[in-house]
Amino acid sequence: MSIKYEPLSGRELPRFSGIKTFFRLPHVPIDADYDVGLVGLPFDGGLSYRPGARFAPSRVREVSSLGRVFHYGRMEAFTKRLKVADIGDCPTVPIDLEMTYQRIQAYYGKLLSMGKRVITVGGDHSTTLPILREMRKRYGKPLRFIHFDAHLDTYPPAWDKDYHHGSFARHAVEEGLVDPKHYHMFGIRGPFTGSDDLDFVKKHGITVHTVDELRDVGLRAFVNSLPDFGSEPTYISYDVDCLDPAYAPGTGTPVVGGLTTYETQQILRGLKVKNLVGGDIVEISPPFDSSDLTSLAGLDAMFEMLSLM
Amino acid sequence: MSIKYEPLSGRELPRFSGIKTFFRLPHVPIDADYDVGLVGLPFDGGLSYRPGARFAPSRVREVSSLGRVFHYGRMEAFTKRLKVADIGDCPTVPIDLEMTYQRIQAYYGKLLSMGKRVITVGGDHSTTLPILREMRKRYGKPLRFIHFDAHLDTYPPAWDKDYHHGSFARHAVEEGLVDPKHYHMFGIRGPFTGSDDLDFVKKHGITVHTVDELRDVGLRAFVNSLPDFGSEPTYISYDVDCLDPAYAPGTGTPVVGGLTTYETQQILRGLKVKNLVGGDIVEISPPFDSSDLTSLAGLDAMFEMLSLM
Amino acid sequence: MSIKYEPLSGRELPRFSGIKTFFRLPHVPIDADYDVGLVGLPFDGGLSYRPGARFAPSRVREVSSLGRVFHYGRMEAFTKRLKVADIGDCPTVPIDLEMTYQRIQAYYGKLLSMGKRVITVGGDHSTTLPILREMRKRYGKPLRFIHFDAHLDTYPPAWDKDYHHGSFARHAVEEGLVDPKHYHMFGIRGPFTGSDDLDFVKKHGITVHTVDELRDVGLRAFVNSLPDFGSEPTYISYDVDCLDPAYAPGTGTPVVGGLTTYETQQILRGLKVKNLVGGDIVEISPPFDSSDLTSLAGLDAMFEMLSLM
Amino acid sequence: MSIKYEPLSGRELPRFSGIKTFFRLPHVPIDADYDVGLVGLPFDGGLSYRPGARFAPSRVREVSSLGRVFHYGRMEAFTKRLKVADIGDCPTVPIDLEMTYQRIQAYYGKLLSMGKRVITVGGDHSTTLPILREMRKRYGKPLRFIHFDAHLDTYPPAWDKDYHHGSFARHAVEEGLVDPKHYHMFGIRGPFTGSDDLDFVKKHGITVHTVDELRDVGLRAFVNSLPDFGSEPTYISYDVDCLDPAYAPGTGTPVVGGLTTYETQQILRGLKVKNLVGGDIVEISPPFDSSDLTSLAGLDAMFEMLSLM
Amino acid sequence: MSIKYEPLSGRELPRFSGIKTFFRLPHVPIDADYDVGLVGLPFDGGLSYRPGARFAPSRVREVSSLGRVFHYGRMEAFTKRLKVADIGDCPTVPIDLEMTYQRIQAYYGKLLSMGKRVITVGGDHSTTLPILREMRKRYGKPLRFIHFDAHLDTYPPAWDKDYHHGSFARHAVEEGLVDPKHYHMFGIRGPFTGSDDLDFVKKHGITVHTVDELRDVGLRAFVNSLPDFGSEPTYISYDVDCLDPAYAPGTGTPVVGGLTTYETQQILRGLKVKNLVGGDIVEISPPFDSSDLTSLAGLDAMFEMLSLM
Amino acid sequence: MSIKYEPLSGRELPRFSGIKTFFRLPHVPIDADYDVGLVGLPFDGGLSYRPGARFAPSRVREVSSLGRVFHYGRMEAFTKRLKVADIGDCPTVPIDLEMTYQRIQAYYGKLLSMGKRVITVGGDHSTTLPILREMRKRYGKPLRFIHFDAHLDTYPPAWDKDYHHGSFARHAVEEGLVDPKHYHMFGIRGPFTGSDDLDFVKKHGITVHTVDELRDVGLRAFVNSLPDFGSEPTYISYDVDCLDPAYAPGTGTPVVGGLTTYETQQILRGLKVKNLVGGDIVEISPPFDSSDLTSLAGLDAMFEMLSLM
Repeated sequence: MSIKYEPLSGRELPRFSGIKTFFRLPHVPIDADYDVGLVGLPFDGGLSYRPGARFAPSRVREVSSLGRVFHYGRMEAFTKRLKVADIGDCPTVPIDLEMTYQRIQAYYGKLLSMGKRVITVGGDHSTTLPILREMRKRYGKPLRFIHFDAHLDTYPPAWDKDYHHGSFARHAVEEGLVDPKHYHMFGIRGPFTGSDDLDFVKKHGITVHTVDELRDVGLRAFVNSLPDFGSEPTYISYDVDCLDPAYAPGTGTPVVGGLTTYETQQILRGLKVKNLVGGDIVEISPPFDSSDLTSLAGLDAMFEMLSLM
Repeated sequence: MSIKYEPLSGRELPRFSGIKTFFRLPHVPIDADYDVGLVGLPFDGGLSYRPGARFAPSRVREVSSLGRVFHYGRMEAFTKRLKVADIGDCPTVPIDLEMTYQRIQAYYGKLLSMGKRVITVGGDHSTTLPILREMRKRYGKPLRFIHFDAHLDTYPPAWDKDYHHGSFARHAVEEGLVDPKHYHMFGIRGPFTGSDDLDFVKKHGITVHTVDELRDVGLRAFVNSLPDFGSEPTYISYDVDCLDPAYAPGTGTPVVGGLTTYETQQILRGLKVKNLVGGDIVEISPPFDSSDLTSLAGLDAMFEMLSLM
Repeated sequence: MSIKYEPLSGRELPRFSGIKTFFRLPHVPIDADYDVGLVGLPFDGGLSYRPGARFAPSRVREVSSLGRVFHYGRMEAFTKRLKVADIGDCPTVPIDLEMTYQRIQAYYGKLLSMGKRVITVGGDHSTTLPILREMRKRYGKPLRFIHFDAHLDTYPPAWDKDYHHGSFARHAVEEGLVDPKHYHMFGIRGPFTGSDDLDFVKKHGITVHTVDELRDVGLRAFVNSLPDFGSEPTYISYDVDCLDPAYAPGTGTPVVGGLTTYETQQILRGLKVKNLVGGDIVEISPPFDSSDLTSLAGLDAMFEMLSLM
Repeated sequence: MSIKYEPLSGRELPRFSGIKTFFRLPHVPIDADYDVGLVGLPFDGGLSYRPGARFAPSRVREVSSLGRVFHYGRMEAFTKRLKVADIGDCPTVPIDLEMTYQRIQAYYGKLLSMGKRVITVGGDHSTTLPILREMRKRYGKPLRFIHFDAHLDTYPPAWDKDYHHGSFARHAVEEGLVDPKHYHMFGIRGPFTGSDDLDFVKKHGITVHTVDELRDVGLRAFVNSLPDFGSEPTYISYDVDCLDPAYAPGTGTPVVGGLTTYETQQILRGLKVKNLVGGDIVEISPPFDSSDLTSLAGLDAMFEMLSLM
Repeated sequence: MSIKYEPLSGRELPRFSGIKTFFRLPHVPIDADYDVGLVGLPFDGGLSYRPGARFAPSRVREVSSLGRVFHYGRMEAFTKRLKVADIGDCPTVPIDLEMTYQRIQAYYGKLLSMGKRVITVGGDHSTTLPILREMRKRYGKPLRFIHFDAHLDTYPPAWDKDYHHGSFARHAVEEGLVDPKHYHMFGIRGPFTGSDDLDFVKKHGITVHTVDELRDVGLRAFVNSLPDFGSEPTYISYDVDCLDPAYAPGTGTPVVGGLTTYETQQILRGLKVKNLVGGDIVEISPPFDSSDLTSLAGLDAMFEMLSLM
Repeated sequence: MSIKYEPLSGRELPRFSGIKTFFRLPHVPIDADYDVGLVGLPFDGGLSYRPGARFAPSRVREVSSLGRVFHYGRMEAFTKRLKVADIGDCPTVPIDLEMTYQRIQAYYGKLLSMGKRVITVGGDHSTTLPILREMRKRYGKPLRFIHFDAHLDTYPPAWDKDYHHGSFARHAVEEGLVDPKHYHMFGIRGPFTGSDDLDFVKKHGITVHTVDELRDVGLRAFVNSLPDFGSEPTYISYDVDCLDPAYAPGTGTPVVGGLTTYETQQILRGLKVKNLVGGDIVEISPPFDSSDLTSLAGLDAMFEMLSLM
């Protein structure tokens, strides 16, 4: 039976009906005939404060009932160019980060080896590292990297643990998974723990776009000034805490003074990226959310990434 | 490919993972090789007060992550005797009750004609009527009927509409779908609108078990005194407002002074029913729920019905 | 224009419609031709912990949409015997307890002088004292007193203030407003602050019915053992924290191990009171409530009091 | 008795006290001596996703406790120029859209025939159509129309139903109720279902102001560039989902990237409208709201409309 | 400076004031001069479903504002016999269970070596095991064990991990930390995953008291029938999911049909234990709680344990 | 033992652990060796609408778990320049405003006489007045005053009470506590009760910066245009309702169309104040908050004040 990679129409089966999948797209096996796989990665074992990201894939699927696929700015539906499907959740070990890393790498290794592109709904930000490891293997070189976040995520070990949700970016650079010269951070703001928090990004030449920079320059000018990422394999990691807590209250470590959903939409729309090989939306914590604001913001980031592909 | 009618193990894929289905059972097409179909019927267009039952199937699937299948009292898992599957949601027209009735009857007519048994998660209580119509057709006679509710649901038209969530029982009797002599109501309590609310049940000889009766007799004695429903086709309709609002806060028209989940469990376990052909759990309103109490109670009623089959 | 003292029918104007009044009864001026006035007394300036009781009258009016007037046990509607109306809210000074007492006494003095009976939705429990003062004046003798509560409310001054929500009962006895020999408390349970908490009730001979007593004797036997309050003027003060927090989470100072709504219903139904001159429902705190459980419980207590009149 | 069309003072009776009406204005019969009637239209039977708008009138009345009537920008109180009153709720049939349309038309027909102006708190957006039908009759020509929304509401039938909350605008144009040449939409943004979503507005020459346009032009310049609506009868329909979900989380079909309450305030203040004959605020869903944000936003839109009259 | 081991009086400093500690008792260093230490153990890295137990110590301290110390049944305050203090939180590694076990053992080893008794607010149930290991060391023999739970917690490894919140009891027996002949479980009920769930308790002779048993026998008779635990060192582990979700909604893996807080109070009061050396309250998940019901229930269990000491 | 005035490190003891204090700083006695005392002032007895501010100190301490001390803009941690400590809560009489004023004055009088600076987490805005009285005494002249608010707080008596949360500014000016020539208000917006609301500020020459002014001028230009407050003793009072309800939903009297947290951050960072002697953050109402947004905003304002000192 051939699969139709189209969302279930809300004008036929009401939007609140049916088994929940990302964008109401078909749920298919990992080895089906799709181009882009949408994957849930329910894991919050790398978090330092509010847990709950384990429920993010399920909740984003729920609010996907409201998802639409036609992009007003680009005047096209991503489903017209790409076969996109929900391929379910990656296995994890909820109580062990290292074992989870192994399962993530096995899963994404398999997926990437089949030539698929993938957008992931995490999970806390520690889950990005094992995905990047497999991306690095698959593409044979460091990826260009676009990183939305309130935090630098280049922090040192905590409680004698080197891997956690605040250190993935440091490891990604140190392991050569991403290219710091083509690494842009959006949404960064303080307060920090200390001045040394900035040492790593300075040393490696990562480009940090603070909220202040964006607001001072103005949104349009800011977006227009962004460099071209060209045709090199590029990955986007979208931590919802880049957003102000008013827009994304349901997250692990909220920081006031952040971006609006409109601003991150505009950045995502303005990105000059020709070869987006993957992306993730992380740190959505449904138990701390209000009125599903954060899941809706995450769904929208997913939509922009798909439209960018 | 042969389908394994077993729940996804929580010791393999964590309970919060995966596409959500009732009891983590496989999602199969309506014409697959199962014995009992679990169906969502998301409709709340028959309600008089709090809406939200349209989200009940989705939320019960979510809390199904916690579902287990082995019955401690009966010392067996229902999955060992029956092939049970989630067959998705019945189509509805969210803004039209009569058109929804047509779609429900088309859907259940098809399902029953294939010889399936079915447990439904509604939906408001108006959805039980079209199911019973198809049950009546299928079995060729009025069904024996077990009805959990705070309300009699034998009420007259409201706002010039004859069909609504408070009149299904009256229609079911008047249309000869159920047998009033083998019709037992549990959980009934006041207050009522007027003394004539009771006229219908008296006239038709329906057996009304009030909360007072159960509490005065004592739970064990009460359960033991219930009649044998024998091998005649029997249907159970479980309106969660039979429960006290402390146990089921998320419902359309809550009434204090109700049953506990333990009491309805014991009644369901004690029922002498040899031929349970179908059942439904209705009036769960997730937007008005607290901590998923009501969805969990509904899931448990579903479990007891499956164990009784 | 003559007023019809009947609730607005939910089968005509849907229950969620219309200006909200207690039991959807007419809102009339204080000097209209009714028998029993339903009054809101929105004040929480006497509280020691969780505030919010100021929103209780408004929220009980909201859930009154679900109110019905026909009593299943008594087989009559209170509206058939009595003209009952919502007369609005008593003025208060939200930030001054003493000034509020003056306004309450002025208001109830006026009301009682017109020969009305009254049921009040408070407010914290400090508001009962000024009502009792006016009751005492009106009836010329101490009232018989039925008091539902987790706490004794006979406590000493706090923060150098003699009047607060935990001392009303002490003042009522000391001022001779109620008759301690015909004073029954239901729902009392610990923990206490110290052994001296009990000194006052012992000294004055108030009858304290603990939760333990009720549960040990059994509900029916307990209710049957209650004395006859006869034709003397009797007042019922129902603090919702008599209920277990599972049944009444939205209250100022919850105590676990409490009564169920069914138990207080049965006590209220079993009371042998021939001359109920007034009653109040206090300590509902909507901001701390879940799914309106506490407001619904308060509404039901109001219904039982009206049915008892 | 002559009615004083002034809000109850919060410095006399505390804001949380009293029977709740819009802006604490008097509740009067439909045929009283007011200029502008504030009406509740509690109906959500036209919705495709989240229900709950049936509770909007009641909740906006509740937050009206915080309402004030003096406009800082205009330096006047609307109550000084106009007699404004709460005239209660329009009858509906909660489970039947067509019957509800009849009741709405009967009610508004009567109201308009008495020469009243009216501001309505809906209800879902399907309720605007029958109001416009009566407006069209009353004024004898198509109305000039100002429409705040995230969605175009010109969508085709859904589930074989032509009338629903996403098709009112199409019907209003097709029935000649509004003049598409003087029809302005504010807040529109994607994603859409498909490119044909825009066909209708293009064909009819409706002016669509996207969020992008407003943000690119700048708020002041944008407001100043709006045309003069002159003295022709003009109607404003304000769907709260024009706002970003951070500002209006409690709505049926939220879309991220929307307007702020400040932006819609400024547009409403800047409108050059000399003959505002009516307006509505729709799609507030209190059960999905957080901290009453959406009801407060709706109340403010009502205030701006009254100040504009 | 000598420390006064008395709770801060709510009649002096209002209950909502001050730095929050358990029962408003003094916060002292681990080596201070107290008898019983109250410890927080914020860890939820062993959970299989809903996280959030990491916030339990903080939330129980918050609701401790309502804590009182005088026991109505025993007619004494635990503070009169014992010096009880809050000694803060045990260190953990939030993202590593094994490292957390090491820190727990180091901390409790030190505490017990100083001759202290201890009551812990967990944490998920995996935290009980390392505490019991240190208890076993301290007392030189297996402890008598009283275990409140919905689940047996004797389950096999999950996701290839042997230690998790559902296996602590199995390990405790297998490691000889508790004596299965003096091991009583309360609150057990189904459903289970399979019949083999019961094999372990049967094999080891653990006494399982199901909810059915308690309800069939009657509460008083049940409590009276419990054996005497004598003067041997005894430990109580109270998992709040022993309670029905109506009484304890905020927990990791709720199961309907459970105990009431009154029932567990009565069991705790009726226990014949002369040498209670420690206890814990686990599996409170504040993010999933309603109105603090579960934290209040946990606080009460703590109070009963202290009163039993 | 010497006290280390450093926050507890989140990389050592996890952020959710430990006794909660402001910024995880040490809790010390009032007479310890600190420079700036952080004080809780839990009182909401001066409020006109939503209560709950009594829980603000406790909740801000809870979210202080997320607090960091290094300022990104200033490139320094306030703890490097100042010894900052949590000195607990000021005593209050929750049910009496005048008595509370006495206790506040006694407490702050003592504190100021020791030469301390102080930042307070209120409480409703009525608590600022007695603090200012003691500030005036301490510094011997009227203070320069920076006031963030949606409201002018110069209102007349309400319910015959002259002191309430909306009149503190009037009293502060009339009592000569603050200098109206160096008094700047930020965040003011309507609607008002009447035109006379503005009379007081006009008469006294207070500078009112409306939201409109800030938005019209542009944030950077606006901040740059603010005057230099010089070395005179200056006080900042930050009422969280200066913020839009989307950013601060949990407050007593929210007003839509307000500032964003980014805007108030920028104002606080841009203030030219050389001698900040004190500040307060008031009107946080946790029971009405969503996802702790308001407490987080309050914590951030506290951080900016500390960084400004």
